[in-house]
Amino acid sequence: MTHTTVTAAALAIGDELLSGRTKDKNIGHLAQTLTSIGITLMEVRIVQDEESAIVEAINALRSQYDYVFTSGGIGPTHDDITAPSISAALGLECVFDEKAMDLLEKHYVKRDLDFTPARKRMARMPKGSSHIDNPVSKAPGFQIENVFVMAGVPKIFEAMLNNVIPNLKTGSKLISQSVDSSYGEGIIGTPLLEIQTENPEVSIGSYPSFEDDGNFSTEIIIRGVDADKVKDVAGKVQTMLDSLN
Amino acid sequence: MTHTTVTAAALAIGDELLSGRTKDKNIGHLAQTLTSIGITLMEVRIVQDEESAIVEAINALRSQYDYVFTSGGIGPTHDDITAPSISAALGLECVFDEKAMDLLEKHYVKRDLDFTPARKRMARMPKGSSHIDNPVSKAPGFQIENVFVMAGVPKIFEAMLNNVIPNLKTGSKLISQSVDSSYGEGIIGTPLLEIQTENPEVSIGSYPSFEDDGNFSTEIIIRGVDADKVKDVAGKVQTMLDSLN
Repeated sequence: MTHTTVTAAALAIGDELLSGRTKDKNIGHLAQTLTSIGITLMEVRIVQDEESAIVEAINALRSQYDYVFTSGGIGPTHDDITAPSISAALGLECVFDEKAMDLLEKHYVKRDLDFTPARKRMARMPKGSSHIDNPVSKAPGFQIENVFVMAGVPKIFEAMLNNVIPNLKTGSKLISQSVDSSYGEGIIGTPLLEIQTENPEVSIGSYPSFEDDGNFSTEIIIRGVDADKVKDVAGKVQTMLDSLN
Repeated sequence: MTHTTVTAAALAIGDELLSGRTKDKNIGHLAQTLTSIGITLMEVRIVQDEESAIVEAINALRSQYDYVFTSGGIGPTHDDITAPSISAALGLECVFDEKAMDLLEKHYVKRDLDFTPARKRMARMPKGSSHIDNPVSKAPGFQIENVFVMAGVPKIFEAMLNNVIPNLKTGSKLISQSVDSSYGEGIIGTPLLEIQTENPEVSIGSYPSFEDDGNFSTEIIIRGVDADKVKDVAGKVQTMLDSLN
């Protein structure tokens, strides 16, 4: 049985995420979605609306991982600089995409709205991009090489991601099983390390919660691509916990 | 009037953040806190519990920014590898800190609990670190050079951050003023760009919300270190919006 790994990184773009004005909601959603389809999110970065910061992050991430997903900075205002920044990173011309201009013009004409210069900015993308459809507010995201550029508004980000997923190659899905422990990590840490050492095919994670009574409880999660092995190790963890009673 | 800038980066460490199991809460809190005291959060990264990934991120961030704040990976289990990873990044020995061993031993003895090998792991830190006190569950975080290493559990992260803040140098506080617009960005984008171009001392951000009626509204935020200038530009934005009626 061979297992394949497909890797990804996320880049969230926007001063508002770094100032604390906006709490990011896209990274968690992307993480859950990618895990569920068998793509491993390896790294996330958040950078300001600064071309040099975006260029540096994009170039670091796209060379290391199979896919890069970005959110934010593709709207109509002056601080939306993702399209020219991605173009600069890839050494491509940033153009007003003809198909996008056409799509947006029809959308605004139909709603009796002006196709303003600001709205035209939303048709910009690196030359040679394909569109990522936006069923919410029309202005498309775009894919160029292994970089998928999507909106920052969560409702639009999620809709765009749904349109991207069918086109992604995926790896072996990670199976996970959770075991609850009423013991804190200080008690189970050592026996858990032993189980991990004996079972390197799975990864055992341990996630403490701080309870109101001042004690810790722990959720133990066993992850792996082989469902039988995950189940087997979860059983061993449970047996270890029972032996502590 | 001179303004000073103090910069920071955040590094959140943990597979659970990248798998989507846990939604990070520390980055948003850190962002808000730093902004409120006059430190500019420039970049955030999230990496897996992998020494090489932690080392690479720490070394990239600590050389670029005044401060680096990390969260996660300082507990007692085998997947808590932040202390040895930070030590490796800085080329320092990772030791069982004597003062931390003493503190933890007393804590567990008092509660009639064993000071297990797992719990002893929480005393590890790069040689020469100072402690960051943990009023919640005792095991300290640590500061070494410009890197502040804190817990991932939000309640503990926040308590540790409170203990760190008084020791930080801070820059000019960013003043921000918000102006609500019932117009979407497509309408206000161009006049907003004009105001931004004429007032480079402030940064004008524009944050669309998608309303249930299918329209966008926009919150415009003017930020700068000069309160009078921020107020002045907010007035200009309001005048511009009123002229659209």
